[in-house]
Amino acid sequence: MMGVSHMTDTRFDVLGIGNAIVDVIAETGDDFLTANNLDKGAMCLVDEAEATRIYDGMGPGIEISGGSAANTIAGLAALGGKGCFIGKVRDDELGGVFAHDIRAQGVTFPTPVATEGPLTARSMVLVTPDAQRTMNTFLGAAIGLGVDDLNTDDVAAAKVTYLEGYLWDAPSGPALFTAAAEAAAKASREVSMTLSDQFCVDRHRDEFLAFIRAHVDIVFANEVEVKSLYQTENFDEAAAAMANDCKLAALTRSEKGSVVVSGSQRKSVEPVTADVVDTTGAGDLYAAGFLYGYTQGTSLDRAARIGGICAGEIISYLGARPHADLRALVTDNLG
Amino acid sequence: MMGVSHMTDTRFDVLGIGNAIVDVIAETGDDFLTANNLDKGAMCLVDEAEATRIYDGMGPGIEISGGSAANTIAGLAALGGKGCFIGKVRDDELGGVFAHDIRAQGVTFPTPVATEGPLTARSMVLVTPDAQRTMNTFLGAAIGLGVDDLNTDDVAAAKVTYLEGYLWDAPSGPALFTAAAEAAAKASREVSMTLSDQFCVDRHRDEFLAFIRAHVDIVFANEVEVKSLYQTENFDEAAAAMANDCKLAALTRSEKGSVVVSGSQRKSVEPVTADVVDTTGAGDLYAAGFLYGYTQGTSLDRAARIGGICAGEIISYLGARPHADLRALVTDNLG
Repeated sequence: MMGVSHMTDTRFDVLGIGNAIVDVIAETGDDFLTANNLDKGAMCLVDEAEATRIYDGMGPGIEISGGSAANTIAGLAALGGKGCFIGKVRDDELGGVFAHDIRAQGVTFPTPVATEGPLTARSMVLVTPDAQRTMNTFLGAAIGLGVDDLNTDDVAAAKVTYLEGYLWDAPSGPALFTAAAEAAAKASREVSMTLSDQFCVDRHRDEFLAFIRAHVDIVFANEVEVKSLYQTENFDEAAAAMANDCKLAALTRSEKGSVVVSGSQRKSVEPVTADVVDTTGAGDLYAAGFLYGYTQGTSLDRAARIGGICAGEIISYLGARPHADLRALVTDNLG
Repeated sequence: MMGVSHMTDTRFDVLGIGNAIVDVIAETGDDFLTANNLDKGAMCLVDEAEATRIYDGMGPGIEISGGSAANTIAGLAALGGKGCFIGKVRDDELGGVFAHDIRAQGVTFPTPVATEGPLTARSMVLVTPDAQRTMNTFLGAAIGLGVDDLNTDDVAAAKVTYLEGYLWDAPSGPALFTAAAEAAAKASREVSMTLSDQFCVDRHRDEFLAFIRAHVDIVFANEVEVKSLYQTENFDEAAAAMANDCKLAALTRSEKGSVVVSGSQRKSVEPVTADVVDTTGAGDLYAAGFLYGYTQGTSLDRAARIGGICAGEIISYLGARPHADLRALVTDNLG
């Protein structure tokens, strides 16, 4: 046949694979973290009993759909991008909430719902007065995600496949990521990955490095994570090592903004000033903005600035899903 | 026996009886209200099928415990008052969220959980850009609340029993309210009631009037509701009729503040200026502040001012449960 491209039709700008989680957010004092031995700013995995214990002790909450890659894809959709999310919930009330919210944002969410096994994953997000968030996540149904849940046609139809480092904790996570990366490569698509969390990097450092070197084009990480990956205290050294291991990396540095690293190039972008209420989702929404710009073909500098605007917006209220019209916000700020 | 008072020990400042509801809040455009034939600003009862239809069509949401009297009691507790709430949830995930949140606020919540029948009540709260909220409530398990769920010792132990007009829509609502009012009278306690909503007043006008005249000491209503109760367009006329039918009424008038009515006395209190995001809970938190002041023995004027501060706070963010430290807020503003 004539005129058949080697590329599949592009149905998605970004396909994300990650933990499908509902966040339970409560404002709390530092004393609660101390009393419960919780590391401020980190994400800690807890079992159902521990989750119940923390929930029983914490203050009144707000439930809002979350999950790192899911937040990124929801943000991409809010910007006008076409997103697909692969993640596992159960057929319970919070699973229904998760599915409703991501679809209501315009995201394709094709993963079959579990009809047995653990309940939908939830993360108790404790927000202290300094706006830092400390997360205690019961992974529940989310880590039941398996290779069978991935339709490789969806991967082939996405400009970028975005992998959430946290999912490496799921039994089938590494196999699923490898299958996704191979499907993307076969379709000449790009693979992106977020390192997710410093403790996640600690748990899986060698495997992360091997996977990135073999499969990943674009890495997202914050300063702590990238330093942890290369076990160095020097950011520039970590950035140089990162540039050596992937095509492109977007490294976020909180109040110092972000740095885009590509080969020998470094582009620093100033942060957006924001009235910080809750830092949950800052990295997720940075990735949303960056990937939106990137898949629309903007410059890396502009992509990083879109990321910064989205991160600045999400930290101005509780939760990691956009309330505001992100598209209008970007247009108002960047034209 | 000597020294036994006719009064039971006071364990609660206020005991509230109402619908136990989880709010599902989404920001929406006016076009969604128009397309779904929804009356802006009102609370509309929907069945499960209609609830599902609206939920499927609405945007991504936030789940937060709600229910009018429950919000009032949660607010009272946030101010430092001792509250008890009587309301029915099911043994489902949202029921667990409701019970957690109200107890985490320090409220006693003794009502047995339903183990069968409809799911925990939920209200789809649609917030338009003008900060108005339009509610579509599936009452579910909430209207299963019956006379057996009321421990009259709890009523006797509360300075004020607060009844939510909305509960008149429950099959056992009127019988439950009568039982509560009689238990309060027997213990020389006071009874308070909120008219809840103009359409609720329309549905039950004659019964509300008869109940208020027979049993209620303190009425809470907004301007539209009190005018509807007496079927007049004239606020002063409605206020005069109200004063004739109960000992004390606190009438809220949105941007005109509130008026406290007692016999021939009228005390007007200016509103608190607020950056309005979502008006959900304004009336509930006004009642919380007023009843907190009232049960602490402050002047009616000061009670109304505390109510205004709490109402001004709750409308500055999504949802009807306090995030801020209401106690500190009142102290900062009134000393």
